[in-house]
Amino acid sequence: MNAPLKFDAATATVDAAAIEPFPNSRKVYIEGSRPDIRVPMRQVSQSPTPDSFGGETNPPLFVYDTSGPYTDPAAAIDLRCGLGTPRLPWILERCDTEQLDGPSSGYGQQRLRDPALAALRFNLQRNPRRALDGRNVTQMHYARQGIVTPEMEFVALRENLRRKEYLASLVESGPMGARVASLLGRQHPGQSFGASIQQEITPQFVRDEVARGRAIIPANINHPEVEPMIIGRNFLVKVNANIGNSAVTSSIGEEVEKMTWAIRWGADNVMDLSTGKHIHETREWIIRNSPVPIGTVPIYQALEKVNGKAEDLTWEIYRDTLIEQAEQGVDYFTIHAGVRLAYVPMTANRLTGIVSRGGSIMAKWCLAHHQESFLYTHFEDICAIMKAYDVSFSLGDGLRPGSIYDANDEAQLAELKTLGELTQIAWKHDVQTMIEGPGHVPLHLIKENMDLQLEQCSEAPFYTLGPLTTDIAPGYDHITSGIGAATIGWYGTAMLCYVTPKEHLGLPDKQDVKDGIITYKIAAHAADLAKGHPGAQMRDNALSKARFEFRWDDQFNLGLDPDKARAFHDETLPKESSKVAHFCSMCGPHFCSMKITQEVRAYAAASGVGEQAALAQGMQEKAIEFVRGGAKLYREV
Amino acid sequence: MNAPLKFDAATATVDAAAIEPFPNSRKVYIEGSRPDIRVPMRQVSQSPTPDSFGGETNPPLFVYDTSGPYTDPAAAIDLRCGLGTPRLPWILERCDTEQLDGPSSGYGQQRLRDPALAALRFNLQRNPRRALDGRNVTQMHYARQGIVTPEMEFVALRENLRRKEYLASLVESGPMGARVASLLGRQHPGQSFGASIQQEITPQFVRDEVARGRAIIPANINHPEVEPMIIGRNFLVKVNANIGNSAVTSSIGEEVEKMTWAIRWGADNVMDLSTGKHIHETREWIIRNSPVPIGTVPIYQALEKVNGKAEDLTWEIYRDTLIEQAEQGVDYFTIHAGVRLAYVPMTANRLTGIVSRGGSIMAKWCLAHHQESFLYTHFEDICAIMKAYDVSFSLGDGLRPGSIYDANDEAQLAELKTLGELTQIAWKHDVQTMIEGPGHVPLHLIKENMDLQLEQCSEAPFYTLGPLTTDIAPGYDHITSGIGAATIGWYGTAMLCYVTPKEHLGLPDKQDVKDGIITYKIAAHAADLAKGHPGAQMRDNALSKARFEFRWDDQFNLGLDPDKARAFHDETLPKESSKVAHFCSMCGPHFCSMKITQEVRAYAAASGVGEQAALAQGMQEKAIEFVRGGAKLYREV
Repeated sequence: MNAPLKFDAATATVDAAAIEPFPNSRKVYIEGSRPDIRVPMRQVSQSPTPDSFGGETNPPLFVYDTSGPYTDPAAAIDLRCGLGTPRLPWILERCDTEQLDGPSSGYGQQRLRDPALAALRFNLQRNPRRALDGRNVTQMHYARQGIVTPEMEFVALRENLRRKEYLASLVESGPMGARVASLLGRQHPGQSFGASIQQEITPQFVRDEVARGRAIIPANINHPEVEPMIIGRNFLVKVNANIGNSAVTSSIGEEVEKMTWAIRWGADNVMDLSTGKHIHETREWIIRNSPVPIGTVPIYQALEKVNGKAEDLTWEIYRDTLIEQAEQGVDYFTIHAGVRLAYVPMTANRLTGIVSRGGSIMAKWCLAHHQESFLYTHFEDICAIMKAYDVSFSLGDGLRPGSIYDANDEAQLAELKTLGELTQIAWKHDVQTMIEGPGHVPLHLIKENMDLQLEQCSEAPFYTLGPLTTDIAPGYDHITSGIGAATIGWYGTAMLCYVTPKEHLGLPDKQDVKDGIITYKIAAHAADLAKGHPGAQMRDNALSKARFEFRWDDQFNLGLDPDKARAFHDETLPKESSKVAHFCSMCGPHFCSMKITQEVRAYAAASGVGEQAALAQGMQEKAIEFVRGGAKLYREV
Repeated sequence: MNAPLKFDAATATVDAAAIEPFPNSRKVYIEGSRPDIRVPMRQVSQSPTPDSFGGETNPPLFVYDTSGPYTDPAAAIDLRCGLGTPRLPWILERCDTEQLDGPSSGYGQQRLRDPALAALRFNLQRNPRRALDGRNVTQMHYARQGIVTPEMEFVALRENLRRKEYLASLVESGPMGARVASLLGRQHPGQSFGASIQQEITPQFVRDEVARGRAIIPANINHPEVEPMIIGRNFLVKVNANIGNSAVTSSIGEEVEKMTWAIRWGADNVMDLSTGKHIHETREWIIRNSPVPIGTVPIYQALEKVNGKAEDLTWEIYRDTLIEQAEQGVDYFTIHAGVRLAYVPMTANRLTGIVSRGGSIMAKWCLAHHQESFLYTHFEDICAIMKAYDVSFSLGDGLRPGSIYDANDEAQLAELKTLGELTQIAWKHDVQTMIEGPGHVPLHLIKENMDLQLEQCSEAPFYTLGPLTTDIAPGYDHITSGIGAATIGWYGTAMLCYVTPKEHLGLPDKQDVKDGIITYKIAAHAADLAKGHPGAQMRDNALSKARFEFRWDDQFNLGLDPDKARAFHDETLPKESSKVAHFCSMCGPHFCSMKITQEVRAYAAASGVGEQAALAQGMQEKAIEFVRGGAKLYREV
């Protein structure tokens, strides 16, 4: 049953698809207050508007870029060396950490010594770091002391996406510039259910949100390769992609390839959920080559260490696993500390019992020992480890519902309350914390989840799997859950854990990973629009303008998946000339509503119908005023 | 550019994929109060629960079946003859229609005479029918006279899906039967936003809903092949699939194949939006072979008749087109009568103008003639035609937004108000009416659309395209819009018009049609669950039970797409023995949360933890009481 290894450290190479540049796009870096704060964005160039539509230039748009150095042609990518370490100077200059002589976990040492692993092992040239004795190195700790770290400034720049500069470039783009800027900068006022959404994200706002626990910046001091990002309800909604091998299938090389593929399509985080062979080595390869935060569920590996017998798990084995992984650089741990003994029997009458792997392991342990789990009783000990490396908590929902039937039941809600109590303990230690959520929930019960989470967990970021809004579509659970994800994102969830089409059926391959991510990027963006994140609508507006003006290539390139859009178009009208044609395959050359609209517009302007001429003049003036007034992106309600 | 015809009437054959039976499924017919009311359903058989999980039998589940005789092995399918005509006796016995000598439209006669069309023409052996002079043959007219038609009884049986019988069969399935029935019959109370959702649909309720205009049964007297279905907010949410050729591509054979393919996967309605060659003949082939209602946009064909010049359109040409299509059996017409002259200039400052084809045609006509459109001024004349054949109105949203930017703007909302006024006129004539809705709308503005529609159109069924909740994902607009569709369905939309992945890019092929439909079946079902349609959750519950018990084949077969679910599973674990294995590829044989849950449950029961023994006993008693008490599917709030 076990797959062959199919991996050799000496010859590991990057997937060619991961390093291909996006069409008409350029990797740019926005410099912060110091030259080593270089925030990556993707700049998408556009062609000018055809003369028949006005002839204006269309300045490039900046989009959020999770793909790291892989899409930078100037970067030398060698998986065997790993990525560069932009965060290292920031970590070092804080002078609150020390470099160890080697891994301090027993298991980490054992793996390093094992000669049989030589062919698999990533050749790491540096030793792990840890907080100096008595020091706390979490971003939350710094924030609470009023410090704005480079990481905080980095995420502030990243969240703003150069929107002000983009609007200004529109104004300067020609005689129609101000009008175009007013069009493309306009956005519907959002409905944010009590979020504190800012016009512009400042480093100070980032610090304040991290300080009060409403956002986290997952960034382990042993993951200096990371490009910092932020998770919180007052920031753009983020997407996590799960990868990882199992006992049945997959190899190290495939998992690294899934990671580079996932970040190419927009994964803001990646969780390595490996449960098969060589978990330790697989993780090392992933982290060393990942520009995004990596999360894990340490209990999976701990269980492997006791040969899959949950009742044999001990605090000591688990603790060693936490240290092992923290020293590799894992940025957040899913820890199912809310599965309390008393809650386990609440699941006995469920339709689908306990479906969380971590939850079921802990439930079994609790029953076998008839005592509270060591995750709960040792929670403050865990906090001590977390703050020594700045690993963030992702408090796991071990009792999440596995079916619509079980949604919002007693067991689920009892655990959520406990997660809220644990959040307070984590915060006492200045440990960054987010809360995991379900699962399978019908549309109308999603709001209750969000409201309870906000209240009971004091607005700690919510990180939900979907939720799936029906159980009747195996093979399409990216969609059943994408619906729920958009909805809960709108209500306030900070990060959405993707579900792939293979959910419930098999391990996702690269195509599934991409389908899952694009679906979740859609859900996250739909939520950003609905919440009213300033400027979220700019990409929609730019793409709609391109669409209306028959700028086919721009329409493709501004989308989430230029390759697929282009391929779909070419299936019907493959000729290159069709890409500038003022019609498309749906209606044909003689029958096009957009063409007719142009005629209507020209007619209206020429004949003065509806006072178009006056309107156009007035709009031009209003537009200039709008941009001069700081281009506030909200219309006042 | 024009595709070759690739079609010959003499050799037309049905697509083999359309007539393949679904796995472990059987077509059954539920007989109504008379033997010629035979309501089709798909009965999905299941395997028994493994002994380790209780060993009970799992009675077959009934699912809504739109596939018509195609999936009935007893039916002889010959596209050249068309389907049988189950409605014909019902129409005849009402004695309010007459058979004509032939088509009464000029165009219909001309096409029939044209020898060049012989090789393309469907060989229809009967002449069209029309209401006797002065009679009104709409289902609404009958309903308002207190008559329960066979069509009404048919849809009542269809909506109930034999749920009571299924629950009873569960009770009788063995010693655990009552407990299982109570599990599988349970459902979360819904949130219906003021809908009048019934515990059981009676023919009288159907009549009353049709009478007050809150539901329609699209069923032209010239479409006796149709298996009646109902569209209204108090019934299951329905899905429409658009097909149709264009000047650029596709043939008659391909369009018929798309129709049979669409209904196989669950399309409740099909719209033929052809704008290319041989629109008349294509439509005839589709209707004669369609068991679901067919809708069209007659202005498309009228425009072809004036060589694409909108300003040359006249009431007379349009009127002849309505009669031509009504006599072929089109069940509903999209008519953009709400595009009023005064609204056209309201679109001039939009980002994407007028994107509805029908809307842009009428806007151009209005401006060219500087007068109200003939659709608006002749609205009562149109009603006279509609009621002579029982064609339903689908009042088109010609000014729907084509981008997030344009959502809920003045033009859109002005038109909606007019559609409400036209609804009152249609109802004065007892003409069945539904209202089309947008389009592109961000999540948080969807509710406003629904609320305004309910209020201004007096709860006439809303029929929306999506809405798309973001513009940034060309290639994935089934998903951007599936999110909006589920949401607006939950709020009260009665039918969802699908969007395929090819939207904005090209004409959908069969794969796109299927992807669009499955996505929209998910959206519709998510909405049914959220509204709390009685028994909607039974399919979720049955599938979840199968999933929990590792009945892989049952899990596949109960889903919307058994083929894909099976294929996905087999990609990782192809062996037939894996389908009964108590593990799957995600976690492997030694690590499975469901297996652990079973152990937790056994442990809990054996050790009396949490009073499981007492609970189990109590539950058994409660279950029996539940089923004896009429198995009410709601828990009281």
